This record gives sequence, structure tokens and C-alpha cells, in this order.
Amino acid sequence: MKISPLQMERLKYQPKLPGMLRNGIAEISVKEGEPTQSVADQDKISALFPNTYGKKEITFEKGTNTAPAKKQVVGVILSGGQAPGGHNVVCGLYDALKATNKENVLYGFKGGPSGLTDDKYIVFDDEYIDQFRNTGGFDIIGSGRTKLETEEQFAQAAEVCKKHGINAIVMIGGDDSNTNAAVLAEYFAAHNTGVQVVGCPKTIDGDLKNEDIECSFGFDTATKTYSELIGNIERDANSAKKYWHFIKVMGRSASHVALECALETQPNICLIGEEVAAKKMSLSQIADQIADSVAARAANGDNFGVAIIPEGIVEFVPEFSVLIAEINELLAGEKADKFNALETWTEKYEFIKNGLTAESFAVFDILPEGIQKQLFLERDPHGNVQVSLIESEQLFAELVKDKLEERRKAGTYNGSFKTQHHFFGYEGRCAFPSNFDADYCYSLGYNACMLIQYGYNGYLSKISNLSKPAEEWVAGGMPITKMMNMERRNGKDKPVIRKALVELDGKPFTYFASHRDAWAVETAYTYPGAIQYYGPSDVCDLTTRTLALEKGE
Amino acid sequence: MKISPLQMERLKYQPKLPGMLRNGIAEISVKEGEPTQSVADQDKISALFPNTYGKKEITFEKGTNTAPAKKQVVGVILSGGQAPGGHNVVCGLYDALKATNKENVLYGFKGGPSGLTDDKYIVFDDEYIDQFRNTGGFDIIGSGRTKLETEEQFAQAAEVCKKHGINAIVMIGGDDSNTNAAVLAEYFAAHNTGVQVVGCPKTIDGDLKNEDIECSFGFDTATKTYSELIGNIERDANSAKKYWHFIKVMGRSASHVALECALETQPNICLIGEEVAAKKMSLSQIADQIADSVAARAANGDNFGVAIIPEGIVEFVPEFSVLIAEINELLAGEKADKFNALETWTEKYEFIKNGLTAESFAVFDILPEGIQKQLFLERDPHGNVQVSLIESEQLFAELVKDKLEERRKAGTYNGSFKTQHHFFGYEGRCAFPSNFDADYCYSLGYNACMLIQYGYNGYLSKISNLSKPAEEWVAGGMPITKMMNMERRNGKDKPVIRKALVELDGKPFTYFASHRDAWAVETAYTYPGAIQYYGPSDVCDLTTRTLALEKGE
Repeated sequence: MKISPLQMERLKYQPKLPGMLRNGIAEISVKEGEPTQSVADQDKISALFPNTYGKKEITFEKGTNTAPAKKQVVGVILSGGQAPGGHNVVCGLYDALKATNKENVLYGFKGGPSGLTDDKYIVFDDEYIDQFRNTGGFDIIGSGRTKLETEEQFAQAAEVCKKHGINAIVMIGGDDSNTNAAVLAEYFAAHNTGVQVVGCPKTIDGDLKNEDIECSFGFDTATKTYSELIGNIERDANSAKKYWHFIKVMGRSASHVALECALETQPNICLIGEEVAAKKMSLSQIADQIADSVAARAANGDNFGVAIIPEGIVEFVPEFSVLIAEINELLAGEKADKFNALETWTEKYEFIKNGLTAESFAVFDILPEGIQKQLFLERDPHGNVQVSLIESEQLFAELVKDKLEERRKAGTYNGSFKTQHHFFGYEGRCAFPSNFDADYCYSLGYNACMLIQYGYNGYLSKISNLSKPAEEWVAGGMPITKMMNMERRNGKDKPVIRKALVELDGKPFTYFASHRDAWAVETAYTYPGAIQYYGPSDVCDLTTRTLALEKGE
Repeated sequence: MKISPLQMERLKYQPKLPGMLRNGIAEISVKEGEPTQSVADQDKISALFPNTYGKKEITFEKGTNTAPAKKQVVGVILSGGQAPGGHNVVCGLYDALKATNKENVLYGFKGGPSGLTDDKYIVFDDEYIDQFRNTGGFDIIGSGRTKLETEEQFAQAAEVCKKHGINAIVMIGGDDSNTNAAVLAEYFAAHNTGVQVVGCPKTIDGDLKNEDIECSFGFDTATKTYSELIGNIERDANSAKKYWHFIKVMGRSASHVALECALETQPNICLIGEEVAAKKMSLSQIADQIADSVAARAANGDNFGVAIIPEGIVEFVPEFSVLIAEINELLAGEKADKFNALETWTEKYEFIKNGLTAESFAVFDILPEGIQKQLFLERDPHGNVQVSLIESEQLFAELVKDKLEERRKAGTYNGSFKTQHHFFGYEGRCAFPSNFDADYCYSLGYNACMLIQYGYNGYLSKISNLSKPAEEWVAGGMPITKMMNMERRNGKDKPVIRKALVELDGKPFTYFASHRDAWAVETAYTYPGAIQYYGPSDVCDLTTRTLALEKGE
């Protein structure tokens, strides 16, 4: 078997473009809007981007193409973690280039941004690209996490572009990669290289969005895949009626994934990092909140449930961050040797007790022993605690267990609490893109080609009105600098694209917040099932609940 | 949101029946075949089942229905772990009962077999049952693991049947549940209760099959769900090119699930428990086999891969079973107290070293410390090692790591080996049944009603020719005793349905074995994607590779 039956069929799918891009390249004209300003720190950002700041937003519309006729040689890069639909961005870009002029060339730089600086590439042709239409993964050219941020890298990039006659780079990536795309664009402009840079918004985490970018690609497919699995587990919980399932989902910096999955599956519990931070919740408070649900359900005879835990949740708990900082301090430099020399855990525990503040020790003390040990024993090469290794789904299951035992002794709980743990991340990053992501990504790539033709530099490919049918989507571009502000990174002020966190006054969260008390007690599970690519439109062409709620639908 | 869009659409799906059952109840006649013999131990089985042994196999065909006209009152039970399609068995049974006579009644006993003995039930009506058509889960009446095996339970069951006027029980379960169904059928016959028992073959594990039962229901959907996820992970591995993913799948007693997933996804490695047992493989040998693949791929620059590990794999390793037995002996009774009194792991380790045979200590010694500790520290209430808690995906990842370090020192390996672990079980047991399982299950239930009408007792509902379109399926019944032999269980000889293990000379395994050397080195991944319910038939109506290969297709 070379490829699966579904892959065979998906290769034939023709992604839908926005209506205004459907008339052929010769019939796409550009309409310039108002000059833009960055979302904050306008003076600093404009000073840092003298050549690319303040440009106009633009939209495409039906009309005579007035772009200068010239051969386009474009390079494309996939940057960072996989997201479903990346292949279709490349396909859309390729198809638009070839529809414009058969002589146009698309280079694919291999293994991420380092492919550009190291000059590792392939040149796409029909035969190669046709194998990847509407498929998941980034295996078309591979991806990587090298950041393009130094002058030396920029100079290498310019050199490689010059060598191949490349006049534009399309960077497919998240907020960091597109921040770097903007800096590269400025460099290219400042050095009169004649090379443009256009970005495309990618990330399953959903945290690259703003008033212009309605969502990043991949979020739709990944959350649908996780929701399929969460729904299946909910149904299993509700059939066997004997386990509480703690399900961790990807999303370290923001809880969009967890929230979307909760809206799709209506679990008993879903933690949202941004709320935990805003309310300065303690581990104990969070555990109590979950224990309340467990106890209320147990009182109804339901000793089962489902809780969704975002991957990065503990990093949002203020007292936990303080604890981590104290541990890093406590074991800094030579102090670690002293600690390591202690033979038994009892002795080590005493050392820890004496070394932490009373507040932090109290936090440390309620942690399960396994995680206590992990914090002290498994540190990175710099001696720091590896917060990312903490299995938060297991942590909360343990904390809740302790809470329930207290309640059992107090006579307020008399149920059974058996747990199962799951982590969903890799399972969804390379799924076959949903029809939405297949269409959206193809449009982003096609549109990126139009931005290049019309000479725009430092722009993000922008497709909007996404909660409507593709026919009504709006294609255009937005200067990346418009999305930037200054933030402290590694001790320096840097211009970066502002990351979108879950807004606690936004509609997706408020919808969730208004239902969660009921969901915590009732069994209100919904079972989304597997992503469907064929069949009824109300099943196959649905967007995320997050986007629908944000758009007031 | 009450139910998901997919669920809404699936409620409308009309499952396909075998051609011979499509002409209406009045046009289904029965054809009796030859009397049957048990697969082994005929004398003992026939002595144990004097009333139900040796009955004829039967098939249904188009013709005048000659079953006696009487009101049917039937009870149905879901037994054991969830499998996709259970709801459709109930729906098929209900529809056939109601199509025969509106006065017929279907009871659903709640929470598994104990629902029958405890008389906990619901009576189905159209409104209730219509909510569950073509859905996953067993939440329609719940399931349970109580075994019906004592005289007392049988008497209670007879009493409950008498109370409600129930004349037949349909038991939906795996090999154990259907073994018990046969014993119950014999009891009912011996006591002239007039109550029939008909079984339906359920289990995602795929180990209830034989020359009559081509497959158990749920296997198709569950393996398709796991294969979706494994394929997605393969694509991620092949995009990021930095991790080896060790994926454990359900299947304790047999490795059918792992094998089917391997046939669907073509991973680098798939362990098969039956082969490990037959070849008496050691942990070290298995680890070497995996390390060979890792090293060969690393030599090609591919420091990534995917390995499928069946849940119960360590129990197939002879030396490991010996080790477990020795540990159980070493810590039996008061000896555990002495062990527990030792303060440090170093002292405990010394105790273990002195207590085990040299052979078993050698096995113990290569285990990662975490698993060593688990074997000694986490024992069940009887003091026995909890083999089921061993995270075999993690175990093999660690063992392989050690092997690679040896090779690195020897200069025969110079790659990078970073791992990720996954376990897929609950994710697939309650998925929406595939079209195959939806059709197969509905047919099993419908057919069970026909077996009841025609007065058969101790039969398994049998639908065969399953690799063909449903139109060509063959409906009939087989005495459960035909599938039985005597086996030692808990120190006693018991009549049981023989469990189907992976046959090492069968076509699914030999196909795998003839390709795996290539798959171990190449990246031959196939990406099945999510189960599709609508769309092209070559995507939506495919059966398992296992069944196709077994049927020579």
C-alpha cells in the first residue's frame, strides 16, 4: 500500500478560494486602505521599522490586474510546530504562481528557516506538489525551529536569495516566526535587496490572532481531532461509569485549544490558564473547584467525569511560579552539590523545608511526592526546574484525590474516585486538514502570491470573514508591524507580534463560563466524532465554536 | 448544544442488512445444516451441555417465515468493555421485534449482567431508542463486568425472566460473556424455563473469532480510530524528524489490534505478543530488534520512527513471567514485611539480588529503575505485582536507549534517540461505529431476533461473508458449544470459548512479516485519516486489512 484510500481521495479535492480570487489572476485588482499603526509602542516600532512601518492595509477585489508583469521566483519556508494545512499553503502559492506565468519558480527551503540560510532547498514541480494536496504534516519540505534573528543570518538569507534570483520569501509560521519575518522584511528593504517577505499565520495553539487575523490555520483541524477523542472518552466514561478522565491538551502559552475543545464536548471541568492567572488562583483552589464537581456528581451517583487541562496550566498559577523561582535559586550553583550529596529523600526534604519560604513550602508540601521529586531531581543543563515536564493532568488528579479524602473524613463525600490520564498533542498536529483548513490554507497561499505580485513587503496574508462560506471570504494583506508591540524577552525590549490570550470578557469564554456550572454537575457531554470531509455541509464545513462565537453566530 | 452535528446526521443513517434479511420478517425462512461438535474435548463439553450440545448450524434465506406466531418478550444485556456498535445491536433487535409484532417487548437490563439478576431495567420505546441509532458507547443501558456463572445467579435470572414474562435473553459480550451465555442457556433448558439465550460477538480486541465468526464487532471502528491517530503521529514524526514515538494500543491477551494498526499504518516496528511467546524472546532480544531499526534509520539520517507496542506484551515474554512469579514468591506473606522494613532502595536492591535466581535477577537488572521499583513497591491487595500497570511503551523505550548507548560506545551507532509515549485505548472504544460496524451490529441484532423467533437456544448470532458488500452477507446462527473447549481457569477445568490469538501462519501476520524488514528501515508510513461515514465507497465502506487478508483479498 503506497497511500491510504482517504489520501487518494483527498488528493482530488479542489479547495475553495474566496469569491474575489476566483476570477483568474488577470481579474484580481488591489484596493489600498488606510495607513496602519502598531497596536502599541508606535514610536519605538516605527523607529525600528523605518522602511516597512505604517504601510496601508489592502484588500483584493475583482478588477483588472495592474501588477507589473515580471517573472516571480519565490522561496517558501515552514517554521515551527506542524499544523494541518501547511501543505495547502504551499499548493495555493504554487498554483497562483504557475497560473500567472508558467515560468515562475517556487523554491521550498528544507527543514525550516535554517534551510534558507544553509541554502538547502527543492524546486517544486507539478508531480511533486500533487502528492501533498490536502494532506496533513509538513513533510513536503520539513520544518524546523531555527530563529532568523541575527544580522549574520539575514545576510546569509540575502545572499541565498541573490544566488537563486529569489524576489520573495513566504514564511509560514506562528507569532515568533512572523515577528522574525517582519524584521527580515525590514532588513531586505533597508539593504535594497529587492526581496519581499510575506507571512502566513500558522499555529494550532490559536494564539496568533487579532482584529485582522481571525484565526491561525491548523487550529480548526487540531481542535476537531482532540474533540473527537475527548468526546469518545466522554462516551466511554458515561458508559462504564467508573473513571474520571484527566485530559491534557496542547497549548502552553494560551488556553484557546482547551476552551475550544470544551465548547465542542461540554466536559465537567475545563481549566483556563488565563482565568487562573487573572484570579491568582492557588493549586488548592483549583483542586477544590474540581473536587466540588466530583463530589456533586458522586452525590448523584455519578462517579465518573471528564476534565480538560491545558498543558501550561501550572505556569499560570502565581504561587507555583514563585515556588519554581525559589527552587531555581535554592539549587543555583554550588548549592546543588550540597543538595545532591544528601543521601535520602528525607534529608533532602528537610533541606528543602529549610530553604524555601513558608509560603512556597506550603505549596510544595501539597504536591504529590512524585512531582516533588521531579522538581528537585530532574533539572535542565542550567540547573533549572523543567516545568514543561510536569504532568499537570496527573498533578491535579492527585491533588483532587487528597481533597476528596479530606471531605470523606469530614463526611461530605462518599464516592469512588478512580482516574485515567491522557495527553493529546501530536495526535492532532498532522491530521488531514478539515475542509475549512484546506480551503483557508490554500487561500492564504494563493493570496500570498498576489501580495508578492503587487510588491508588498512585510505583510501577513490575510483572509477574513471566515465564519461565512468561502465565497464570501475577503482576501487582502496587513503590515505585520501593525500587530506588534514592545515586550521584554530575555532581558531585552523586543518588537514582537502581540500574542492572543483567551479574553475573559470575550464571547467564547463567557459562553463557557455561563454553562460550566451546569456541566460540572450534569452529564452534558456532546460527541463531535471524527472530522468528516464528505457528506452533509452542516457536518463538514463547520468552523470552530470559538470563531462562531467571536463572530456572534 | 444538545447533540453534535455528526450525531444528528448519524441518527438518520439506515444500516444495511444482509440481502436475505431485507425482504421483511414474513419472508425469512430458516435452513438447518449439520449437527455440530465442539472444537475440542467433545465428550466433556457434551456432558456439560446435555440440552444444548450438538445442535445444528443454521442459515436464514428468503422464503416463507414458518416460525410459530407468539408474542416475544426479550431482554438484552451489554457485557464488559465498550465496543463501537453495541447500540446498533440493540436497535436491530428492537426493529426486528417491532416489525414482527408491535406488541413485542424489549427490556434492557442496566449496568451489565447484574442488571438481570438485580432486576434493574428499562423498557425500550421508539423515542428512547431513536436517540442511540448509529452512535458509539454503551450508555443506552450501561455495561458491567459481573459474570453470570453461579447457580444462584442463574436462579435469580430465571426468576426475573418469569416475573416479566421474558422468553429470551440476548447477551452482547466477548468470549467470557458468551461462554456464560452458553452455560445460562443450558441451565434454562435443563430447568424447562422456556427462556432462550442468544449471544452476539463483541470485543474491540478481535480475539473472539473462529471458523464461524469472522470478526467481533467494534474491532473495525476501534482499530480505524487508533490507526487514524498512529498515522497522524507518523506524519508528525516524518515532518519534525526528531522523535521516536512508542505507541501502546489496547489488547492484553492477543495482538490483533496492534497487527491491524500496523497493516493500516506501516510503522517501523510492531511487536506481536504471540510471536514473542512462540519464539520465547527475551526483553533484550526485543530491545535489540527495535534498536536495529533505530540504528539503521539513523545511518540514513532518519532519527525518528514509530513503534507499536501491544498492551500485554511483557506477559508474553517467558523470562519476564518467571521474574514476576519469583517476585510474588519473594514477597509472599511475612517476607513482605521484612522487605518493607528496609529503609533505602540500595538495601532493598540487595535483598532482591539475594532473593531472585541468577537468571531472573539478570532480567530484573536490565529494567529501568522506575519499573524495578514499581514491581516491588506497587503491589495489589494480595501482594502480587501489578503487571497491568507496567508502562511497556516506556519500558521498551528505555531498554532501547540502553542498547543504543552500548552501540554508541562500540562505534556502531551515532544517532539521536528522543522518545515520546502514547497509549490508545479509551479513545476508540466508544467512537461512532464505522459504516461496517453500524451495518454489522444492526444485522447481528436483527438476526438475533430471528434466532429467537425460530426457537434457538445457546446460539451465537452469526453474520458471515463480511468482506463482501452487505447485500452478500450471510445471516444465520451457530451453537456456542461448537466454539468451546476445556481450559484450566483458576485451578479448575472449565468449558470456554477458545480465544483467538494471532496465528503466526495466518495471512495477516505473514503479510506483516514479509514487509516489516523494509518498513523497519524505510519511511513507508501510510496515513489512514479519520473514519469517514459519507463519501466515496472506497473510503467509507472498507473493512479491516485483517479481514481482507484472511479472506484472501
